[in-house]
Amino acid sequence: MNRVEKLSADTKDVMAELGRQAKQAASVLAIASREEKDAALIAAADALRHSTASIVEANALDLGAAREVGRPDAFVDRLALDEKRIDGIAKGLEAIAKLDDPVGATIAEWRQPNHLKIERVRTPLGVIGVIYESRPNVTADAGALCLKSGNAAILRGGSESFHSSRAIHACLVTGLKAAGLPAAAIQLVPTTDRAAVGEMLRGLDGTIDVIVPRGGKSLVGRVQDEARVPVFAHLEGICHVYLDRGADLDDAVPIIVNAKMRRTGICGAAETLLVDKEAPEEFLKSAVTALLDAGCEVRGDAQTQSVDPRVKAATEEDWPTEYLDKIISVKTVDGVDEAISHISTYGSQHTDCILTECYGTAEHFLKRVDSAIVLHNASTQFADGGEFGMGAEIGIATGKMHARGPVGLEQLTSFKYVVRGAGQTRPE
Amino acid sequence: MNRVEKLSADTKDVMAELGRQAKQAASVLAIASREEKDAALIAAADALRHSTASIVEANALDLGAAREVGRPDAFVDRLALDEKRIDGIAKGLEAIAKLDDPVGATIAEWRQPNHLKIERVRTPLGVIGVIYESRPNVTADAGALCLKSGNAAILRGGSESFHSSRAIHACLVTGLKAAGLPAAAIQLVPTTDRAAVGEMLRGLDGTIDVIVPRGGKSLVGRVQDEARVPVFAHLEGICHVYLDRGADLDDAVPIIVNAKMRRTGICGAAETLLVDKEAPEEFLKSAVTALLDAGCEVRGDAQTQSVDPRVKAATEEDWPTEYLDKIISVKTVDGVDEAISHISTYGSQHTDCILTECYGTAEHFLKRVDSAIVLHNASTQFADGGEFGMGAEIGIATGKMHARGPVGLEQLTSFKYVVRGAGQTRPE
Repeated sequence: MNRVEKLSADTKDVMAELGRQAKQAASVLAIASREEKDAALIAAADALRHSTASIVEANALDLGAAREVGRPDAFVDRLALDEKRIDGIAKGLEAIAKLDDPVGATIAEWRQPNHLKIERVRTPLGVIGVIYESRPNVTADAGALCLKSGNAAILRGGSESFHSSRAIHACLVTGLKAAGLPAAAIQLVPTTDRAAVGEMLRGLDGTIDVIVPRGGKSLVGRVQDEARVPVFAHLEGICHVYLDRGADLDDAVPIIVNAKMRRTGICGAAETLLVDKEAPEEFLKSAVTALLDAGCEVRGDAQTQSVDPRVKAATEEDWPTEYLDKIISVKTVDGVDEAISHISTYGSQHTDCILTECYGTAEHFLKRVDSAIVLHNASTQFADGGEFGMGAEIGIATGKMHARGPVGLEQLTSFKYVVRGAGQTRPE
Repeated sequence: MNRVEKLSADTKDVMAELGRQAKQAASVLAIASREEKDAALIAAADALRHSTASIVEANALDLGAAREVGRPDAFVDRLALDEKRIDGIAKGLEAIAKLDDPVGATIAEWRQPNHLKIERVRTPLGVIGVIYESRPNVTADAGALCLKSGNAAILRGGSESFHSSRAIHACLVTGLKAAGLPAAAIQLVPTTDRAAVGEMLRGLDGTIDVIVPRGGKSLVGRVQDEARVPVFAHLEGICHVYLDRGADLDDAVPIIVNAKMRRTGICGAAETLLVDKEAPEEFLKSAVTALLDAGCEVRGDAQTQSVDPRVKAATEEDWPTEYLDKIISVKTVDGVDEAISHISTYGSQHTDCILTECYGTAEHFLKRVDSAIVLHNASTQFADGGEFGMGAEIGIATGKMHARGPVGLEQLTSFKYVVRGAGQTRPE
């Protein structure tokens, strides 16, 4: 602990040095081969498994501190590492090693009339700052995704998982060294001083190219407000399901229940059900009953309340609320256009869904709803990089710049134009 | 002028209202058809030609003011509009109408094992702020590119071209109205108050999605420093040509002269020539003589000075300098790696070129030089959206986020994921 306390005194200098090291490492990573990067990931996975005992020991320090300050059991459980969870983290690294290397891939190529051959080729972004909360596995997941996409990572974990993250990070460094890559390719902020976050948000003298926050709304909100560098994030996922008059009720009800109840704590969970007033009467009743029977609290407008006495009254505050819990708000709307307008007013541009068999209505909705993900006849819980076939994601972005939706390896890259000529000069 | 002065008093309110109007217009533009957008551009071109007299009259006010404050002839010339130039602006609008509509295009599509069909579809960014200097034609060019890409534009022209820009803008509004599109799709800031720029850089309450500055280094520098929203720009174009030992001298010399001298004031003009020390002696001499004979001042290191008495001594200040003039700095380097290292130290990540017939050396350079555009055996003056086949560009970006290199219609878009299902729910 002495080292950590000493560092806290001069966090600004420590962070500036991390930035310099990261930038230097980034230039090596940018031209590292797929084989080198994969070898580092596989060696890191091996190191994790071999270091199980010391990781569990470090984790015990964090767990003890968490219990001491009376953290709830759910919190302590999220923090806890055992052999099985450590093996899971190692498997995650191996899975990322198996993904295609995005760097160097040609995204587009064409030849101009003057025979210049122009290619758009993927390049890394540079240095990615990741700021996260208590889950120590993010250290490995985020570090590995940055490495595989050729970016240097500066990781700032939560102070509650400091010792666990440090033990995991040591294994990543072992992997990097084994593969002959710079240890600074993945750096963990070596202090729990909160000033370190502020330094990262200011970009460490232009060395950080993008910040990815992983955590709750207050963390993401602070990062979005204060960052002077681009941020890939979503503040919240107020996801809507619109049940249209043209829906097939047998298909629709299971989707509604799945969208809300499969997991209520994820950003792609539905928070509001909008039901077409012109739909047959049974639509609203069937959907609401299925939700209630699945153990969901339903807060509805007057029409929704009329179908079941268990429905509570929704207030204006419900529409912009992300419950992340077994609660849903239900509103009846005047067809697809009022649904779109409600989503535009209260949504978070994350993921929204229409249930209908009417192709024209579906296209109308898919075109007009301005969200990162728009779905037709499928659960909003598919809003996930893995489910999209991206292999793994570092998060989901609702901004429109650069990355939108699940942020996987490709979204962690930029590109450059490579132009090949044969002596061409530009005429007047 | 009264209206303008009155508005200056409450610039903050005026700008906030522009932002609200733009956001509203953006939601209409986002779903406007190609036909509507093209009709607006063609009607605007017609309006420009029909309004030649009034535009020339408005321009005369700007020209008179410029002469009165003693602006140099070159400045007055850039500002001047006549029938031919106005016709050129109209032709520019018609050319943009002919380009493909990027909005709604499917960038990628695939089917997941569970039969979900996932598409990445281009969408507009939203509202684009354009801040430019004296050239009044930017009003039309930038407005048209934003419109065609489905974005609302807020244009802030230089105060010296205020009347000219206002006259051109009136024609754009005529075109929008003729096509039934909102007049607020392209707004011109109706005040010359400098505070308006500050308001735009703060994003007008989150309504501006991206800022594009068009102008000199001081304008771009201010925008990059102060903007709280993403910026597509390049601060400068310190472009290098590296003459490798493996070059074909007959091909190389014309490229070097073209890269420097075709136009010296554009960002893709070469500013530094790096010559391989291992190249045959005639390489350095031929290149330097050709530049001197073409009327270029050459500032070189000791070895370069030794080949011709006309070569002046380069100082450390020359390497990071963008002359934008008939001046070039020349340095001899120890092969491709020192060239890459020099470019990494002094370059601006804009456009850099290698001249060699050795494929391996070329690939080494193209992979390692971290610039938006890297060229092999072709002039740096090809750094231009038109020359890349993009039709037109709103500028060139050297950042790595979202847009890099020439910023054309596609770079002014974002995307969303459209997911089509048939009742899929996500399993546990």
